Amino acid sequence: MASVSLHGLEGLPLVQPGDDLPALLGDALDGAGLRPADGDVLVVAQKIVSKAEGRLRRLADVVPSPRALELAEVVRKDPRLVEVVLSESREVIRAVPNVLIVEHRLGFVMANAGVDQSNVEGDEEVALLLPEAPDDSCRRLREGLERRYGVRLPVVMNDSFGRPWRNGVTGVCIGASGLPTLLDRRGAPDLFGRPLRITEIAVGDELAAAASLVMGQAGEGIPAVLVRGLRLDRQDQGGPDQTATALLRSRQHDLFR
Amino acid sequence: MASVSLHGLEGLPLVQPGDDLPALLGDALDGAGLRPADGDVLVVAQKIVSKAEGRLRRLADVVPSPRALELAEVVRKDPRLVEVVLSESREVIRAVPNVLIVEHRLGFVMANAGVDQSNVEGDEEVALLLPEAPDDSCRRLREGLERRYGVRLPVVMNDSFGRPWRNGVTGVCIGASGLPTLLDRRGAPDLFGRPLRITEIAVGDELAAAASLVMGQAGEGIPAVLVRGLRLDRQDQGGPDQTATALLRSRQHDLFR
Repeated sequence: MASVSLHGLEGLPLVQPGDDLPALLGDALDGAGLRPADGDVLVVAQKIVSKAEGRLRRLADVVPSPRALELAEVVRKDPRLVEVVLSESREVIRAVPNVLIVEHRLGFVMANAGVDQSNVEGDEEVALLLPEAPDDSCRRLREGLERRYGVRLPVVMNDSFGRPWRNGVTGVCIGASGLPTLLDRRGAPDLFGRPLRITEIAVGDELAAAASLVMGQAGEGIPAVLVRGLRLDRQDQGGPDQTATALLRSRQHDLFR
Repeated sequence: MASVSLHGLEGLPLVQPGDDLPALLGDALDGAGLRPADGDVLVVAQKIVSKAEGRLRRLADVVPSPRALELAEVVRKDPRLVEVVLSESREVIRAVPNVLIVEHRLGFVMANAGVDQSNVEGDEEVALLLPEAPDDSCRRLREGLERRYGVRLPVVMNDSFGRPWRNGVTGVCIGASGLPTLLDRRGAPDLFGRPLRITEIAVGDELAAAASLVMGQAGEGIPAVLVRGLRLDRQDQGGPDQTATALLRSRQHDLFR
């Protein structure tokens, strides 16, 4: 029987800038009695990676530009927060009251460039940015944990995105190392031997969403999930090691800007 | 430890129009030794529901309208298929070569109104439509299985959708009965006691995506997944029983048409 299990890692301490995240995650895995095995995938919430990497910006230190002041009036947000969002963005995609959708400098189309004020300890006036290079962060986490356990352990970083046309947020892959994020099924036959019409499966995003089910979204209670039983090696027809960039549609194929 | 397991149901026979799907799913659950328990959720692939409900359209019987002929030239698809798509749609959202995105009559913004030619047995010239009313289909499946097992068994129907800005498809909830599809977290405090900024979680879509990981997408090999260990009762702050309609963003809140 094809079974996949998702194990939430509880009991991580509140992550602080400079923390050794592979060590904290390894200790949490050990504490939960979960010894990673080949075939497992670890999904880690963006928030704890950003915190460990010190991606905090004190809003008191931010001086909004004229453009941020203007945009802040449109979207009814703190101009200093808008300044931080713009500093993380290539382009504003939509700006209406309470909604600011941008293309993040890494290519993600998302609200507020992923800049978040919730769940940052202490001062309300602190913003948490996405990691500088989430794919690299995943690679470092993977390498650290692979050294510790002596197995392959692909790592995915997830965040919560809203979507056009649909209510609510879902978990989305914003970083990855060691696994295919976009399965290429071109040429694979269906049950009746015809080529499949659906050719690419965003398995990185499906992993991110599945982990998000376990994480809940109420904070850092469960900031990492070990996924066990996925047979990516058998499914994979594409590259064995893709980053989250493989999930980004190129501008020329995009119909919704 | 918070753990969720996803159990793929293999060994279902190829579903035919008129088949008693609750009976087939129940037999597959029994065959896998999976006795549903309170707290479980069953995710069922759209294809087998559409087939059981006989939602097949022989293209040989379809006469394309002038509008379908015109649109077919733009999108480079079979005019008869385009006619079927239009008959299932309220509005064309985007039409370019090889891409036809519509608002389905049920409100889903999706490619080809969910009309699919793959994995339909026998004749290449047959199109498979979405169920007439997927939420009702889920309710009937749920009631049938709840009678059989004497437990609550929420049912979600999933399909694969492409997304703006991102490559590949992911599992999406197009029908539901017996569970919250959109968790309302408004007012829930984060770890530091502040109200959460992210207020609604599309748990129906996250369940659909998680199940899709197990189903793979290569056909009907695994057309249903039993999800065990999700604590929706504890998370739920909204209604306990929502349909897939709760996941549809209203037109006035939509920025991407």
